Amino acid sequence: MIEFVRRPAAREREHEMRDRRQTRYFITGGAGFIGSTLADRLLAEGAGVVAYDNFSTGQPEFVEEARRHPSYSLVEGDVLDEGALEAAMRGCDTVVHLAANADIRFGLEHPRRDLEQNTLATFHVLEAMRENGISRIAFASSAAALGEPSVFPTPEDCPLPIQTSLYGASKMACEGLISSYCEGFGFEGYVFRFVSLLGERYPHGHVIDFCKSLRKDPTTLRILGDGTQRKSYLHVQDCISAMLRVVNRRTALETEHRVDVYHLGYPEFIELKDSVRWICERLGVTPRLEYTGGSRGWVGDSPFVFLDVSKIRRTGWEPVHTIRDSIFATVDWLVENPWLMERR
Amino acid sequence: MIEFVRRPAAREREHEMRDRRQTRYFITGGAGFIGSTLADRLLAEGAGVVAYDNFSTGQPEFVEEARRHPSYSLVEGDVLDEGALEAAMRGCDTVVHLAANADIRFGLEHPRRDLEQNTLATFHVLEAMRENGISRIAFASSAAALGEPSVFPTPEDCPLPIQTSLYGASKMACEGLISSYCEGFGFEGYVFRFVSLLGERYPHGHVIDFCKSLRKDPTTLRILGDGTQRKSYLHVQDCISAMLRVVNRRTALETEHRVDVYHLGYPEFIELKDSVRWICERLGVTPRLEYTGGSRGWVGDSPFVFLDVSKIRRTGWEPVHTIRDSIFATVDWLVENPWLMERR
Repeated sequence: MIEFVRRPAAREREHEMRDRRQTRYFITGGAGFIGSTLADRLLAEGAGVVAYDNFSTGQPEFVEEARRHPSYSLVEGDVLDEGALEAAMRGCDTVVHLAANADIRFGLEHPRRDLEQNTLATFHVLEAMRENGISRIAFASSAAALGEPSVFPTPEDCPLPIQTSLYGASKMACEGLISSYCEGFGFEGYVFRFVSLLGERYPHGHVIDFCKSLRKDPTTLRILGDGTQRKSYLHVQDCISAMLRVVNRRTALETEHRVDVYHLGYPEFIELKDSVRWICERLGVTPRLEYTGGSRGWVGDSPFVFLDVSKIRRTGWEPVHTIRDSIFATVDWLVENPWLMERR
Repeated sequence: MIEFVRRPAAREREHEMRDRRQTRYFITGGAGFIGSTLADRLLAEGAGVVAYDNFSTGQPEFVEEARRHPSYSLVEGDVLDEGALEAAMRGCDTVVHLAANADIRFGLEHPRRDLEQNTLATFHVLEAMRENGISRIAFASSAAALGEPSVFPTPEDCPLPIQTSLYGASKMACEGLISSYCEGFGFEGYVFRFVSLLGERYPHGHVIDFCKSLRKDPTTLRILGDGTQRKSYLHVQDCISAMLRVVNRRTALETEHRVDVYHLGYPEFIELKDSVRWICERLGVTPRLEYTGGSRGWVGDSPFVFLDVSKIRRTGWEPVHTIRDSIFATVDWLVENPWLMERR
């Protein structure tokens, strides 16, 4: 009888302790645009964060505030350094894998890079998790993994695409690794296919390229393609809200294969021309626009990116920032932080 | 006028020479089940063949006859040895990439193997092609790359699947690499998703496992799963006919992204139980059947594999061998070639 009484009580105490215990997130690419913004949000919510970054594109300035927080630690390391990765991850319970080569456009100049920094790196992250007994992973995939879709807005279970960029192909390879670890090793996986993100700390893409160019010469702007490329964009804070909503509810546990895939985007799209107009308006410049022509900005660029976000909206999530507001916020932040445009 | 007369003649001669010039195929996994059978077929059709194999699962006996052919050469080498691969490929114009870790079932015991021998190896093959100025590739993908499909029979553009095995995930990663090379580097790609193949030289899968087991003990047969797993199978010769039909017509050149994907299977499926019955019938044994239970043979096994082969049939291809005939042919060949069952 003593046994009978003690066991449930012990179990309850253990459960309570686990609840009170701080969730510790391990963020690869933790000093990057998305990673540092996520870290700030998690710290504000009371979670612990270990940020892992090799500072190839991450910025010390992005983590300045977080570093003063007692529940934050920063480890400088590369995701391809298996030993360092495994050691840094120790004691965490959830991995958010954001580190990647995000340079879609120049993939063809160095085809090994997407394979190594995305596919192999993800394998190392998964193996380091196994070594540490961590089984919960959220992953930043991309709309680019859908190649040039045939259905718009594009749902999570769209027709199996043909890959058109090494970057997209590598992101799909990462998704495959993660879901087979969920099936085979009982991992719990959250895969988020993002449209391009905008907002504070935005380091890379057409908005910074245009702002840089207009800073140098506000009279002319050269635009890749014919300007009719249709794209959706999402504010980084809306993106993080969506990710945390899903990860906190642990929805993957209710799925057949323990992996849950979500498309994250804004439920509208714009033409590149619109973005050009808004950027110029916000900067107060009226350059002569030179379009290079063609329906794609570069080989592998998808001329139409528009994700179906019904699934994430069914969780109650709604984006707060319109695409126009997000572009304005990005431009404003870049104007206030010109150091980032000078850095690379 | 002289110019006018000479140019077309010169062009015609060049064209003729090119036609007369022998197509030279480079086959990775060239000493394996499919590779050696393909080599024999190509040699019979007058093509040249360079077979590349590390003999990890390839068999010297499979290439004995081919080696006596003047248009055949065999290079012992590993697809992970970039230098050897690149050198061996020189002078070929079409690559058929079959080398792979084909061991789906034990993927979880060595997760690095599918990544290295499938994903990385395919990258090396593509890079060696670039180095050699070769741009035409046919690739053996797999129905396993479709995870557990939701549509049957499963067409090429089925809903984007969740990967359930490391093997399937790696095959999808290879497909992605190949199609991005087609888009980015002007390659011409043929991707074939196979069901399990049967026929002469069949080295691995349930038929050889059952034959081996029944040779040792004809009174009992242990079967993974409950026997209701539904699968389609294709005879290796039917598979090769389909591949050659498509590659010879160069259909990829008519597609938007220069890559053409085909599902190759028999337009029917059987239950594992049927296969067991036919194998026992052919061997003349009546063992007690012990089913281990469950709808899957192992973690990552797809309980239903049935590909929609309408697309390949539209080219005029039809399979010659029924599934039952293919199983009989496989059993007969194994009985006549017991050395293969003894080897591993």
